[in-house]
Amino acid sequence: MSTLSVPAEVPSPAEDAEKLYQAFSGWGTNEGQIVSILAHRNAEQRRVIRKVYAETYGEDLLKSLDKELSQEFEKLVLLWTLDPAERDALLANEAVRKWNPRDRVLIEIACARSSTELILVRQAYHVRYKKSLEEDVACHTTGDIRKLLLPLLTAYRYEGTEVNMVLAKSEAKILHENISDKAYNHEDLIRIISTRSKTQLAATFNHYIDLFENPILKDLEPEAEDEYVSLLVAAIQCLSLPEEYFEKVLRLAINKLGTDEEALARVVATRAEVDLGKVGEAYYRRNSVSLAHAVASDTSGDYQAMLVALIGHDPSC
Amino acid sequence: MSTLSVPAEVPSPAEDAEKLYQAFSGWGTNEGQIVSILAHRNAEQRRVIRKVYAETYGEDLLKSLDKELSQEFEKLVLLWTLDPAERDALLANEAVRKWNPRDRVLIEIACARSSTELILVRQAYHVRYKKSLEEDVACHTTGDIRKLLLPLLTAYRYEGTEVNMVLAKSEAKILHENISDKAYNHEDLIRIISTRSKTQLAATFNHYIDLFENPILKDLEPEAEDEYVSLLVAAIQCLSLPEEYFEKVLRLAINKLGTDEEALARVVATRAEVDLGKVGEAYYRRNSVSLAHAVASDTSGDYQAMLVALIGHDPSC
Repeated sequence: MSTLSVPAEVPSPAEDAEKLYQAFSGWGTNEGQIVSILAHRNAEQRRVIRKVYAETYGEDLLKSLDKELSQEFEKLVLLWTLDPAERDALLANEAVRKWNPRDRVLIEIACARSSTELILVRQAYHVRYKKSLEEDVACHTTGDIRKLLLPLLTAYRYEGTEVNMVLAKSEAKILHENISDKAYNHEDLIRIISTRSKTQLAATFNHYIDLFENPILKDLEPEAEDEYVSLLVAAIQCLSLPEEYFEKVLRLAINKLGTDEEALARVVATRAEVDLGKVGEAYYRRNSVSLAHAVASDTSGDYQAMLVALIGHDPSC
Repeated sequence: MSTLSVPAEVPSPAEDAEKLYQAFSGWGTNEGQIVSILAHRNAEQRRVIRKVYAETYGEDLLKSLDKELSQEFEKLVLLWTLDPAERDALLANEAVRKWNPRDRVLIEIACARSSTELILVRQAYHVRYKKSLEEDVACHTTGDIRKLLLPLLTAYRYEGTEVNMVLAKSEAKILHENISDKAYNHEDLIRIISTRSKTQLAATFNHYIDLFENPILKDLEPEAEDEYVSLLVAAIQCLSLPEEYFEKVLRLAINKLGTDEEALARVVATRAEVDLGKVGEAYYRRNSVSLAHAVASDTSGDYQAMLVALIGHDPSC
């Protein structure tokens, strides 16, 4: 459920490109104009605007934005304007370079994208960085975290609806056994989480509850402070409950003393065209305040305007 | 260097489909006609013939071939007629189902295809088997062999020409250290072999010789009888010297008491449109007899005719 609102009559890409060019011209930048255009165009429309802009004005739109904007607003507009696969490649590369095991970006890219989207990210990574995502990740990580991250990032999961119930049951038992033994890095556990289809995993997690009472995430909770286990938990959440996962990331980002702008911008930019509507619903259920309102209260200026435009609600509601 | 010979004037796919249909009709099958058409059409042409055949005669060409042909000839014609990605998916699935650690098929698919081809194989596997290649492989293998096979099969290697010489040198040292310690399953060794681009690996293997005298394969030789090490050796050969690797597979297949038809058909069907010319040159250098001649001496009938047509030389030469 996308929160993107595209006008019924979309101006031509040439008109959009021209208005953007005008917004950069003269004294000061017209940020409102930038928001009113870019925040209301889908990925394909933005791609064409970028192409037409480069052909007409001889500069990549991203470069113009980079020169004209600043701080969080700039970061958000750039992230949003990028093609989704390119955006993920950039986020992944940033995550690898500033490697921090608490960072969830690689898990999100590996587990909360479709199989085809993940391949496109890997292709975009080749083009942009002249190497593969997996060689960078393998090179910057070690031990259990590498053992988990690599198969997740290189997976090409089946996406059909077929479920093997016998397998789901037997693998629920394997997961439970590994977790009971605190063998969170067991190769069978990693194999199941990193190769099975999301539909199959949903069945496995259901059998887990049926057979052992608790949801699998509940059984992992006691160890959730551990760096490796917390990544495993994030992977399971992104695979099975992405809306609840992203709701929590947003909640923590907003509630933090001095909003976590990076997480906020990332989730809004990467989910607006995917499921930000459902994330917003989960947010309202959990916090009794609308996501747009919470974000608006916590931010200001052009940055606020862009966020709220992407979240798709009036800040007063 | 492909060995495929396509006539200068190719009949229309409809004509080809009709001639194939005729070859199946009446008393007996006209195997010569089948060879004269299919062995002289490239993958794209075969794909269109198959499409037109299904539209015109209401049956998949592969099914007709399956009904009309038999034994090694059937197997070879079917393999050849399949789309390359579908063919690899089928070979991989067969290898997984009859899992034998001596089988080289999965290594060949993982290491002797381009990055894009390997992705296409994984897509074809989804379509055909309603699951992912990696979940099947992960499920049927264990231990070190799984640790090596999975990252090889899920790799999407960078394919540009850029080489990092400093990295090549440092990774040559890591490989040498692991091999000297007999730590053939060391995670750094597997990481390097399974993630670096083929160009980068070529530089690394060259530094290995410069620094430590022997080629890396020479240093692995003493342990080559070990199942795991022999797979590792095959991976390195497929990545760096595919022609020599396939030359050896053919040599062993032909010299075996009672030719290894499976290996022979597989290598000819999978390499004819890729590098069978160079494999043939390597064969001649090593055996002082042409590949076509060796194959012709070892086989007979329609099977022989099809093989020789694909190898692309007159058996008398």
